[in-house]
Amino acid sequence: MDSHRDSAPAPFTADDYRARMARAVDAAADAGLDGLVIAPGPDLVYFTGYQLTATTERLTALVLVPGKDPVLVVPTLEAPDAARAPGAEALGLRDWTDGTDPYDVTAPLLGTGRRYGISDNAWAMHLLGLQRRLPDTSYTALTEALPMLRAVKDAHELARLEAAGAAADAAYREILKVRFAGRKETDIAADLAALLKHFGHSQVDFTVVGSGPNGANPHHEAGDRTIEPGDMVVLDFGGLKHGYGSDTSRTVHVGEPTAEERRVHDVVREAQQAGFEAVKPGAACQDVDRAARAVITEAGYGEHFIHRTGHGIGVTTHEPPYIIEGEQQPLVPGMCFSVEPGIYLRGRFGVRIEDIVTVTEDGGRRFNTTPREPAIVE
Amino acid sequence: MDSHRDSAPAPFTADDYRARMARAVDAAADAGLDGLVIAPGPDLVYFTGYQLTATTERLTALVLVPGKDPVLVVPTLEAPDAARAPGAEALGLRDWTDGTDPYDVTAPLLGTGRRYGISDNAWAMHLLGLQRRLPDTSYTALTEALPMLRAVKDAHELARLEAAGAAADAAYREILKVRFAGRKETDIAADLAALLKHFGHSQVDFTVVGSGPNGANPHHEAGDRTIEPGDMVVLDFGGLKHGYGSDTSRTVHVGEPTAEERRVHDVVREAQQAGFEAVKPGAACQDVDRAARAVITEAGYGEHFIHRTGHGIGVTTHEPPYIIEGEQQPLVPGMCFSVEPGIYLRGRFGVRIEDIVTVTEDGGRRFNTTPREPAIVE
Repeated sequence: MDSHRDSAPAPFTADDYRARMARAVDAAADAGLDGLVIAPGPDLVYFTGYQLTATTERLTALVLVPGKDPVLVVPTLEAPDAARAPGAEALGLRDWTDGTDPYDVTAPLLGTGRRYGISDNAWAMHLLGLQRRLPDTSYTALTEALPMLRAVKDAHELARLEAAGAAADAAYREILKVRFAGRKETDIAADLAALLKHFGHSQVDFTVVGSGPNGANPHHEAGDRTIEPGDMVVLDFGGLKHGYGSDTSRTVHVGEPTAEERRVHDVVREAQQAGFEAVKPGAACQDVDRAARAVITEAGYGEHFIHRTGHGIGVTTHEPPYIIEGEQQPLVPGMCFSVEPGIYLRGRFGVRIEDIVTVTEDGGRRFNTTPREPAIVE
Repeated sequence: MDSHRDSAPAPFTADDYRARMARAVDAAADAGLDGLVIAPGPDLVYFTGYQLTATTERLTALVLVPGKDPVLVVPTLEAPDAARAPGAEALGLRDWTDGTDPYDVTAPLLGTGRRYGISDNAWAMHLLGLQRRLPDTSYTALTEALPMLRAVKDAHELARLEAAGAAADAAYREILKVRFAGRKETDIAADLAALLKHFGHSQVDFTVVGSGPNGANPHHEAGDRTIEPGDMVVLDFGGLKHGYGSDTSRTVHVGEPTAEERRVHDVVREAQQAGFEAVKPGAACQDVDRAARAVITEAGYGEHFIHRTGHGIGVTTHEPPYIIEGEQQPLVPGMCFSVEPGIYLRGRFGVRIEDIVTVTEDGGRRFNTTPREPAIVE
C-alpha cells in the first residue's frame, strides 16, 4: 500500500502561541471575564505546545490576564521541561517547590473579586484550592464561558485536520482488504491501529469494532467476539496526526446485507447527508443535529438514535462545538466537527456513519471522503 | 531470561468493592462529611473496578452516602460498559442522555446544605456544575478531607504491590546486561518498557533514563542524548501489574565512577537507608523525609535535593501518603510509598535511589530489593 509519507507541516512557533493567547485574552474580555486559568491537557497544548509527561496532583496552570504577560505556574521539578515547550518564549515561568503552597504563587496572579474562565478538566482539587484562597473570585468552565475558544481553526490547523482525515481514510481503504470473518474484533482493531500509525498518526485514540449485536452499543470498543459471516460491523477510529485529530466511522458488512440491514444503513446515510447539508455559516449547531435526526425519526428509528450528532475536533478528538439539541451557537467558517448519526438496534446490530466536516464560507466541506455506501468485506 | 509467568491473582469481586465503599462511607462520616463524590480515574477503579475507555466531558460520578446504596451516574452511551464493571453488582446505575442535564440526576443524590469529599481529579467543569445547582452544599478535595482513603492496603493489595515490585526488580537485573555506551537514552527506555511488559506489567507509566547532565533534572524522561562512557545514568521506571503499581530507581555508571560520583552515590544510598529505617507505625510521613534529608544536608548537598522524599502507590503510581515536610499523618501498617532521595548537580549528573516500602507492625519492608550500590554497566 502507498505509505503516504507526506512531509510534516512546519511546527507552530512562539509567535503562533503568542497570537493564540492574545486572541483568547480578547475573547475573555469580550465575555466579561478578567482572564483565563488554563490547565494541562488540550487547552495548554493549544496555547503553549506544552505537553506534560503525566498530569499529576502537582499544580501546573497558565494564567492569562489582559494587559499582563502570560504566566505559567509550574512545579520546580518540571520547570526545565516547561522551559523547552514550543511556546515557552512567549511565557513567564513561576515555579513552586514541593513543600510550599502552589496557590501562594497562583493567587496573586489572579487577584480578588475577579471572574475567570477555567479549563473544563482542571482538577477539582486545584479549583477548590483557589476558591478557598480567593473566596471573592469566581470561575466558569471554559466550555460554558468561551465554548468557541479553540473551535475556529486557522489555515494551518485546517491543513493538519485535513491531513489527519486523509490518513484515516487511507486506513479505512486498507482495512476493507483484510479478512473479517473468523477473526476477533480486537484483531481488526489492532489492524486499524497499525494502519493509522502507518499513515502518520502519532497517537491512536480509539478503534471501535462493533460486530453484530456489539454494534448496537455505540461506545463498545472492541472485544473477544469472533466476527461471523452476515455481521454488520461498525468501525469508528481516530487519533492524532501532527497534533490534530481524525475521527471517522463506516459500517461494513461481512457478505451481503439483508434488506433490513440495507434499509437501516440507507437511513443513516441519508441522515448523515442531511446533517452535512445543514452545515453553513450562521446555522446553529442544533440545526445540524435536527436535520440528521429528522431523517431517522421520519424513518421510524428515532428512539434508536441515542446520542448527539457530533462533536468538535482539533488538538483533541472531543471538544466544542457540540452538535446537539439546545446548542444555539452559530456555525462560523473554520469550525470543524463530526457529523455521525447512528441507529442502534439493541441485541441485533448498529450502523453509524461519520465524517469530519469543516464550515466554509458557503456551506461545509468533508475531511473524510471514502464511500458511505455499505462496503462488503470477507 | 526467566519469564516469571507467575499466576494472576484472583480478581476482586463485587463483595470486595462493596466492602471498600462501606469503609469509605464510614471514614467519610468520621471526618464529618455527608458523603463522597468519586470521579473516573484511580478512585473509581478502586471502588468499582470501572475503568472508562476515555474520560471525556460527559459526567460519570459515583455518589456514596451513608445509609444509601451507592449510585453510579453514567452517560446512557456508557451504561452498558459500566454495567459490566467488576463492582457493578454493588451499584445502582442512573444514566443520563445527551441533551439532558447530568446535574439533574446527580444533585438530588447529594441534597442541599451538605458537605462532600470529591475526587481530586474530578473535572472543574463538573464541580462548578454541582456548585451552581446546590449552592449550599460544599466540597473538599479527597486528598485533603480523607487523604488516607486508599492509603492502607489489605493483604490482596499488598500481594499485588509486592509482585509488581518483584517484576520491576527483574527488569532492572536484565537492563544491567544491555549495552549503554553509544546508545540513546530512548533506546534504554524502550528496553525497560519491554522488560516491564515481559515481566507482567499491563501498563508502563514511565521509563526515565537520565544520562550525564540529564540525570540532574529529576523529571527528565528519556531523550536523544547518546550515552557515553563515564556517564552516571539515573533509571526510574514503573507501571501497573495486575492493577497495582511499581516504581523503582537505581543509578548506574558506564565504566568506573570517579571518587566524587561514588561519594554522591554513597550519600544518596545512606539517605535512602535512613529514610527506610525511619518507617514504622506512628512515625509521621515527614519524619521519613527528614531522616533522608538530614543525611544529604549533613553531607553538604541539601540544596541539591529538590523534591520530596516519596509518594504513595496503589492503583496508581502517585497518590497519598506524601512523604514530605509538613505532612504529619502517622504511618499505619499497610501503607505503601516510595522512599527516593536524590542529589542533582545541575549541568553535571544526578543520583536517585528508590524503593517502594510498606509499613509493617514493627517497621518497614521493601518491595524493591535489588542492590543499591552503584552498578557498573558497559
